[in-house]
Amino acid sequence: MLLQLSTWLEVEAYLERSQGIIVPIGSTEQHGPTGLIGTDAICAEAIARGVGEATQALIAPTINVGMALHHTAFPGSMSLRPSTLILVIRDYITCLAREGFTRFFFINGHGGNVATLKAAFSEVYATLVDLHVPQAEQVQCQVSNWYLCSPVYKLAKELYGDQEGSHATPSEVALTQYVYPEAIKHAPLSEPVAKGHRIYGAADFRRHYPDGRMGSNPALATPDHGKQFYELAVKDLSNAYLEFLAAV
Amino acid sequence: MLLQLSTWLEVEAYLERSQGIIVPIGSTEQHGPTGLIGTDAICAEAIARGVGEATQALIAPTINVGMALHHTAFPGSMSLRPSTLILVIRDYITCLAREGFTRFFFINGHGGNVATLKAAFSEVYATLVDLHVPQAEQVQCQVSNWYLCSPVYKLAKELYGDQEGSHATPSEVALTQYVYPEAIKHAPLSEPVAKGHRIYGAADFRRHYPDGRMGSNPALATPDHGKQFYELAVKDLSNAYLEFLAAV
Amino acid sequence: MLLQLSTWLEVEAYLERSQGIIVPIGSTEQHGPTGLIGTDAICAEAIARGVGEATQALIAPTINVGMALHHTAFPGSMSLRPSTLILVIRDYITCLAREGFTRFFFINGHGGNVATLKAAFSEVYATLVDLHVPQAEQVQCQVSNWYLCSPVYKLAKELYGDQEGSHATPSEVALTQYVYPEAIKHAPLSEPVAKGHRIYGAADFRRHYPDGRMGSNPALATPDHGKQFYELAVKDLSNAYLEFLAAV
Amino acid sequence: MLLQLSTWLEVEAYLERSQGIIVPIGSTEQHGPTGLIGTDAICAEAIARGVGEATQALIAPTINVGMALHHTAFPGSMSLRPSTLILVIRDYITCLAREGFTRFFFINGHGGNVATLKAAFSEVYATLVDLHVPQAEQVQCQVSNWYLCSPVYKLAKELYGDQEGSHATPSEVALTQYVYPEAIKHAPLSEPVAKGHRIYGAADFRRHYPDGRMGSNPALATPDHGKQFYELAVKDLSNAYLEFLAAV
Amino acid sequence: MLLQLSTWLEVEAYLERSQGIIVPIGSTEQHGPTGLIGTDAICAEAIARGVGEATQALIAPTINVGMALHHTAFPGSMSLRPSTLILVIRDYITCLAREGFTRFFFINGHGGNVATLKAAFSEVYATLVDLHVPQAEQVQCQVSNWYLCSPVYKLAKELYGDQEGSHATPSEVALTQYVYPEAIKHAPLSEPVAKGHRIYGAADFRRHYPDGRMGSNPALATPDHGKQFYELAVKDLSNAYLEFLAAV
Amino acid sequence: MLLQLSTWLEVEAYLERSQGIIVPIGSTEQHGPTGLIGTDAICAEAIARGVGEATQALIAPTINVGMALHHTAFPGSMSLRPSTLILVIRDYITCLAREGFTRFFFINGHGGNVATLKAAFSEVYATLVDLHVPQAEQVQCQVSNWYLCSPVYKLAKELYGDQEGSHATPSEVALTQYVYPEAIKHAPLSEPVAKGHRIYGAADFRRHYPDGRMGSNPALATPDHGKQFYELAVKDLSNAYLEFLAAV
Repeated sequence: MLLQLSTWLEVEAYLERSQGIIVPIGSTEQHGPTGLIGTDAICAEAIARGVGEATQALIAPTINVGMALHHTAFPGSMSLRPSTLILVIRDYITCLAREGFTRFFFINGHGGNVATLKAAFSEVYATLVDLHVPQAEQVQCQVSNWYLCSPVYKLAKELYGDQEGSHATPSEVALTQYVYPEAIKHAPLSEPVAKGHRIYGAADFRRHYPDGRMGSNPALATPDHGKQFYELAVKDLSNAYLEFLAAV
Repeated sequence: MLLQLSTWLEVEAYLERSQGIIVPIGSTEQHGPTGLIGTDAICAEAIARGVGEATQALIAPTINVGMALHHTAFPGSMSLRPSTLILVIRDYITCLAREGFTRFFFINGHGGNVATLKAAFSEVYATLVDLHVPQAEQVQCQVSNWYLCSPVYKLAKELYGDQEGSHATPSEVALTQYVYPEAIKHAPLSEPVAKGHRIYGAADFRRHYPDGRMGSNPALATPDHGKQFYELAVKDLSNAYLEFLAAV
Repeated sequence: MLLQLSTWLEVEAYLERSQGIIVPIGSTEQHGPTGLIGTDAICAEAIARGVGEATQALIAPTINVGMALHHTAFPGSMSLRPSTLILVIRDYITCLAREGFTRFFFINGHGGNVATLKAAFSEVYATLVDLHVPQAEQVQCQVSNWYLCSPVYKLAKELYGDQEGSHATPSEVALTQYVYPEAIKHAPLSEPVAKGHRIYGAADFRRHYPDGRMGSNPALATPDHGKQFYELAVKDLSNAYLEFLAAV
Repeated sequence: MLLQLSTWLEVEAYLERSQGIIVPIGSTEQHGPTGLIGTDAICAEAIARGVGEATQALIAPTINVGMALHHTAFPGSMSLRPSTLILVIRDYITCLAREGFTRFFFINGHGGNVATLKAAFSEVYATLVDLHVPQAEQVQCQVSNWYLCSPVYKLAKELYGDQEGSHATPSEVALTQYVYPEAIKHAPLSEPVAKGHRIYGAADFRRHYPDGRMGSNPALATPDHGKQFYELAVKDLSNAYLEFLAAV
Repeated sequence: MLLQLSTWLEVEAYLERSQGIIVPIGSTEQHGPTGLIGTDAICAEAIARGVGEATQALIAPTINVGMALHHTAFPGSMSLRPSTLILVIRDYITCLAREGFTRFFFINGHGGNVATLKAAFSEVYATLVDLHVPQAEQVQCQVSNWYLCSPVYKLAKELYGDQEGSHATPSEVALTQYVYPEAIKHAPLSEPVAKGHRIYGAADFRRHYPDGRMGSNPALATPDHGKQFYELAVKDLSNAYLEFLAAV
Repeated sequence: MLLQLSTWLEVEAYLERSQGIIVPIGSTEQHGPTGLIGTDAICAEAIARGVGEATQALIAPTINVGMALHHTAFPGSMSLRPSTLILVIRDYITCLAREGFTRFFFINGHGGNVATLKAAFSEVYATLVDLHVPQAEQVQCQVSNWYLCSPVYKLAKELYGDQEGSHATPSEVALTQYVYPEAIKHAPLSEPVAKGHRIYGAADFRRHYPDGRMGSNPALATPDHGKQFYELAVKDLSNAYLEFLAAV
């Protein structure tokens, strides 16, 4: 059930039976010569919708632009400041918590979002108390990274070994190929690919990772792999979401 | 050309021929008993994509959640604070301006966004100067509301007269029916519909507009009307975008 | 009744009979070679005081510096950031609402303030709810631009036609001449005057409007015209204020 | 020379001969049963204008609302948060420093402003460096409290002794009587007047100072005293301003 | 070499040979019935000083109050908001980077700090570029948690097994006993200790962890264990710091 | 009683008998060629601990980095922005006030902190009301500067006369020598020492005070003097703290 395609009467009815909502969060950032700039948002959104169907959960609109400052030396990358993203999360949850939602399950497609999301959750719990929002103390937020689901992770290792890398990975590219087969891109991938440098500022990132990839070989990706990743992630995160709802 | 479905190499090439980008901005808010909560985002996104095809423009990801604080007494509505939305716009444009974009054309689906967007543009111009962003002085931002395009406005008056109203209008509902025919909703619409009260806070809004509509009769909407609105808006805004690019 | 010239006991008594207050807001910005930098504040303040006399309303101190970032390439111009002005408005209204005021009527002399003021109102309504200010839901804010009052607008067109322009206009200059006849300035006005360029950043503005005027011929202004504008604006806004108070 | 009554061409010429500007800052707060709410702004503005005439200095518009949170339990009092006032000062000085002003002389009428002003100056110096404003390192800000000018202070002690008190003092009331003789107020003043309690929050303040005065007897004030205070302050601060300009 | 016990001339000389600095960061929060409120700061500071001696590194003053909002339902706990801590880190690093430091090594004693620290680092890299700080692109920040050093972690498992828990652990308590043997506390520890509940808001935390411990048995701690932990951590983090400095 | 060396149970017990807490605040800034960068924090902390012993008061962790922007042109100096320090103080007091503390006594070692601290207190009182913190109206904050205690001030004048100066003074250096005799530094001190220039920005400060001292001769300091200053300050501030607690 997509919030965007629902009416307020339907949401009112939904709240009678559940106080949970799933928020997909991705990023808009370079993903190497062949990866889509929207990769992280596309993956998070597709999987969230799958989880929504599997669990009858309500799905909020996708946060398309996340925390990707370190990618902004590549054209087309966009990022919120961490301090801005914290405010965005605060505003989202404050509105929804006042309307009766208490369980916020973020399905995340981008490693760079995690720290800021967790910081935001802490800020949000305190803010809800500050504002004396009813049920403030019942509000719980959780972030799950689809690419770290154990079966997803295992399959990626199985299919790609070390060539999975850590950015513009074949697994995420495969997933976008499954969702948007019309947008499969081709470009030469230089050998060897850079890896092993920690992430600091944007210029430093581009200097060390000149084509944007971090140790990955996205040429290994196929739409069929993508379908497998999708199904594993949906299954795993559906269980995670239901457990999250069930916890006291 | 959708930014989300492009690679950074493609954006780099795009920047060789154009420094313009279109940003759809909508809202996530109640649209009466039968209107979709995502109406404003759906309309802005669909039209922006049409304009993108017509003009070869790059389309940024849609800002799904805008400034809709006055709707937040209805379940499912979400809003950024104006002060947050200003920061979001600042972050978007700062990233993109540093990468070489100078013309930002916002296609807007929600009246409540306009004031904050315009405030944000002023803040952004000053910020770019503060940061000594190259080409800061070339950056220009503009917001166009699809529902105020002259041919759109005329058709709405022709088809619906006074029953167009000013929120949850048949014209916007029609457009969503055209885009998502599978999500056409039905619910009883009380008579007469409230109208004429100015917009202040959220509780005040709901007290005066108890089902969320402002003087509108969305039951008049049809998908075919939606198609007409879509085509008129795309044509009109395509011209507007090209003029914007051409201005000195 | 001017707040500045009242005692707190008088304000306490005033609140027994009215919860309305008028806030003049202007700007401190270039107004062409002959217009006063304080034009917008002077006009707003003079008219607000006239409305105060006509309606027995309390008048708050004038906000002299508004949102005029686009004028700041001219010496003597001052501006708040939109984000700062939002906080100023928030602070003003929070204090006054806690003391019992619920109707805030801004008489505005500067187009550049409008977007930020409207954004600020939205922020304020939400803030008052956040703070659990009693009567938060009764608070209503409205901005009226004196130069857009229908009789003012008509007279300006009648007297000046196209030479009214849109900044450093003869109508506003005339009003300052009426209020401060000792400060009528003379300087050569180049021909033709620039017009038709949209407003973006400050350097861009000055490049397109090198002497600060936007399509106007302030040489047409006379103190007597100013008197007429003053009287029309006071009458029109007095009615507007009383209607605002009377609305539910 | 009042900025509000000048043109930008006149300011441009002024900057050729001086880079100094005087900013009057007051407050909008209760001043006991008979003191005007605008007392601090009225005093600061009148004296600043006198200093402007004596020294040919440019006078910026008065900051009417300052930091008076502790007075806000009395109707009609208004205050900025310290954090807001810091931003206001930052915005004022940033604009003016970019235009060429380097010496900012604040004539202050309210003790509650001093700490925040000084904090703001520190923030401003750093901000100007952050923004690489030319001449950032030449910018100097100073605040002078008219009521602490040595001759003013002495006269107040002479005329009123202990009855001068520390808020709603006869000296400041006298000065407003001199400036606005038409607004001299009368009301019973209870005996004895409270004194000696430090300033904390607003409710605490009103509890300890129930009529708003702090140890003062404003009934001793006369317009003629006001004239003397005015002249002493103008003379003393004119010297102070000229010394400030002359310092390296 | 402690920054607090150095002169600026000594720091100037230090910068000739190294651009690295170590910042200890802890927390001020409940640590169960027998753990010190300063545990995390004490551990981080002691280890940082040990690392400083081993590597000739400069040690900044300890950040004693971190992000511990979830502990604030227990008396004596203090916390910065994540948004505040981000600003603190920004201010620290901006000052030091302008003076020539480029490598910032945070030795951390509190899990709750990690997300906010990482968010802050991203914000800082971008800020340094915004401010055009020379060497902005050379600045690198890293956080190391002493309790996750592999030899520390192993020893804790060896000594305490599952009774190590995850808050108010015997390992950290032992370390404080080694540093402050005069402050060893005794109090009854209820059985069984709570565990397994995720961390959300402060009230929720206290409800699930009524005495503050998370699955730990700090009664197992001894000063001698503390000495072992200290030595392992110093050795491991000294290597980590030197590698950090050596990386390109 | 040091908060850092207490358990939450001990703090809970403390709150039964007292709602006061002492917060030492210093700075991390150059103190001339021979003064320690931590001078202000060292002095404030040592004296606060002495006062804590004398009065049985709880001592919060020291704020080591204060408002020292004007010193940041010297290596090793660190500073918070005033706006950041306000937030830090807000966070500290909000946490502690919610736990039951109502009297906050800051023992300060650095003149540059005073304005910002006072601004912060005003902000805090208002924030506690905004948040509806119970006992908000009982909260009182006070700052005492140890170096301005009357007996301290007198002794400094007696021992050093004019050579006390106003920064890197022999009195504060003496106190650090008493606390850290192992860190007594020697360096040539140029003659004559600069003095008499007001404090503005950091570059301006260093230009006028090239070795960091302001009119002082720290070579006169001895550890024995330091002991005397320490004892006088502890005695004087112990009385001040007890009076503060006793006031209504």
